[in-house]
Amino acid sequence: MLQQLFTPSVQHTLDLIGIFVFAISGALLAVRKNFDIFGIAVLAEVTALGGGLIRDLIIGAVPPAAFTDLGYFLTPLVAAVLVFFLHPQVQRIQTGVNVFDAAGLGLFCVAGTTKAYEYGLGLTASATLGLATAVGGGVLRDIIANEVPSLVRWDRDLYAVPAIVGSAIVALCIRFQALNPGTSAVAALVAFAVRLLALRYHWRAPRAWNRRSSAVEVPEEG
Amino acid sequence: MLQQLFTPSVQHTLDLIGIFVFAISGALLAVRKNFDIFGIAVLAEVTALGGGLIRDLIIGAVPPAAFTDLGYFLTPLVAAVLVFFLHPQVQRIQTGVNVFDAAGLGLFCVAGTTKAYEYGLGLTASATLGLATAVGGGVLRDIIANEVPSLVRWDRDLYAVPAIVGSAIVALCIRFQALNPGTSAVAALVAFAVRLLALRYHWRAPRAWNRRSSAVEVPEEG
Amino acid sequence: MLQQLFTPSVQHTLDLIGIFVFAISGALLAVRKNFDIFGIAVLAEVTALGGGLIRDLIIGAVPPAAFTDLGYFLTPLVAAVLVFFLHPQVQRIQTGVNVFDAAGLGLFCVAGTTKAYEYGLGLTASATLGLATAVGGGVLRDIIANEVPSLVRWDRDLYAVPAIVGSAIVALCIRFQALNPGTSAVAALVAFAVRLLALRYHWRAPRAWNRRSSAVEVPEEG
Repeated sequence: MLQQLFTPSVQHTLDLIGIFVFAISGALLAVRKNFDIFGIAVLAEVTALGGGLIRDLIIGAVPPAAFTDLGYFLTPLVAAVLVFFLHPQVQRIQTGVNVFDAAGLGLFCVAGTTKAYEYGLGLTASATLGLATAVGGGVLRDIIANEVPSLVRWDRDLYAVPAIVGSAIVALCIRFQALNPGTSAVAALVAFAVRLLALRYHWRAPRAWNRRSSAVEVPEEG
Repeated sequence: MLQQLFTPSVQHTLDLIGIFVFAISGALLAVRKNFDIFGIAVLAEVTALGGGLIRDLIIGAVPPAAFTDLGYFLTPLVAAVLVFFLHPQVQRIQTGVNVFDAAGLGLFCVAGTTKAYEYGLGLTASATLGLATAVGGGVLRDIIANEVPSLVRWDRDLYAVPAIVGSAIVALCIRFQALNPGTSAVAALVAFAVRLLALRYHWRAPRAWNRRSSAVEVPEEG
Repeated sequence: MLQQLFTPSVQHTLDLIGIFVFAISGALLAVRKNFDIFGIAVLAEVTALGGGLIRDLIIGAVPPAAFTDLGYFLTPLVAAVLVFFLHPQVQRIQTGVNVFDAAGLGLFCVAGTTKAYEYGLGLTASATLGLATAVGGGVLRDIIANEVPSLVRWDRDLYAVPAIVGSAIVALCIRFQALNPGTSAVAALVAFAVRLLALRYHWRAPRAWNRRSSAVEVPEEG
């Protein structure tokens, strides 16, 4: 087993913060989609825990952490209740939510890559699962909300790249036996920073070359 | 292992009834969406077996019951063929279908909670998986049909609450060592009754407070 | 364990070809949907590996082959890059892509049925998982692209039937202890041929009987 990223209680607190901010993003989309309180709770849970759930099913870590740690389950409910009552206020601090979401992205890609490697997967597979941990919940959120996932849309600021960068740094650290709390923190911080820069400067990824000019350029509503 | 809810053959018959009525609801949606016969069969299978499949993957019960019990697999096909030939008649008895679906909801949330607990999950996680068993197939059905899941829509009668009530009763019975065929039957009946009342009186769950008046109030087509 | 369908290296090469052509179909849909380069890569990976991933989770083969064989992971990325730069040329040879996709369908339903049986599932369940291996990736592709899955749409040429035929032949061969490289190849070829005939003659499956004339007849855009 690798060294813990941080002490167990620090790690757990960071996990809960990541879960909380991801749940906020799910709950806010549910409000925008006019879902009822149960829809808000479902979307909060799925967004917060879906990425880790996919990873745990793939690496064979059953039952997944989402179902063995009561804090993981209850935190999204707190976020759902908060958004239910206070969503105008939460939306007003959207920039703050985005910053926390970027922090969650950084923490989840590092934790996901590390856990997958501990379960015996190769470096490329571990990094891929780190990415899946970070972005999987958002994809499930958008599927349930019946929208094209943000992750794959050209008119959204880069989201996959920061997670790929963070996961790749962890994989490289493992490869060169340099993974420790310090380098893990660096990986999470780099992913966090790249995401913030992408938000700040509206970095986007290119679409296919040579698209016909008749291709639809209008971003979808949402 | 807990006591069986009923004798094995009674339990199996109840399972098949639940599977059958869920499959009918999937097949009817497929007809409404203009799917071909294979689409009808796929949606019948997914609706009937999807919830249990999700539960079994999460608790590590592989291969899932859906793939080890031939009756579980064939029952939805019977429902699909029936709806294929007789869907106007089946739709005409929509109220009857709703009553059976409510019965399936009650049976599945009890069976799901019990099975998850037998596989070692905690009470909250078991109740959550009971809920997932009861509603998961319907969510997968709506996702494949490219619709916003009924479960999360504010303009649909309560569906999650009856399943939550049934699952919670089972979890409480386990907690106080009072789970037996009698209390299990009570839990299923209460969930069944709450769902029938929700249908009869159009009980709905609230949406977020303070929605702006400009929020979309028009229910989506479907 | 059953005999290998072919020698390991031949089997592996066939797998990679199937993965590659499925990935092309995913990447092309991503370009049509105006996704960015990451969306193209995600859809290529999901289309190519999704069916096998679902099968492996259900039979308990974790971590799934998609995460243990680096070639399986990298092949869809090659397809994504190819489509990113050359999609007008790839689209121009759509007929060729369809032929390769039919070949992938044949190979995947045979390989999926065989692997499920090796993991101890019954014949019907194995054939069902052969079907799921062949069509699962395409269904996930369409769900992520927020479209009604091609598989269930009445206005698309038969896709499930060829895979069902191929899977059923393998299951029958296992039943009568006649599965060997030769009969496996026959099963794959029959599935391949049925799919080509369905494309050539626009074979379609019937929709429900007695649809009201008011039923929507207009195929969805896409």
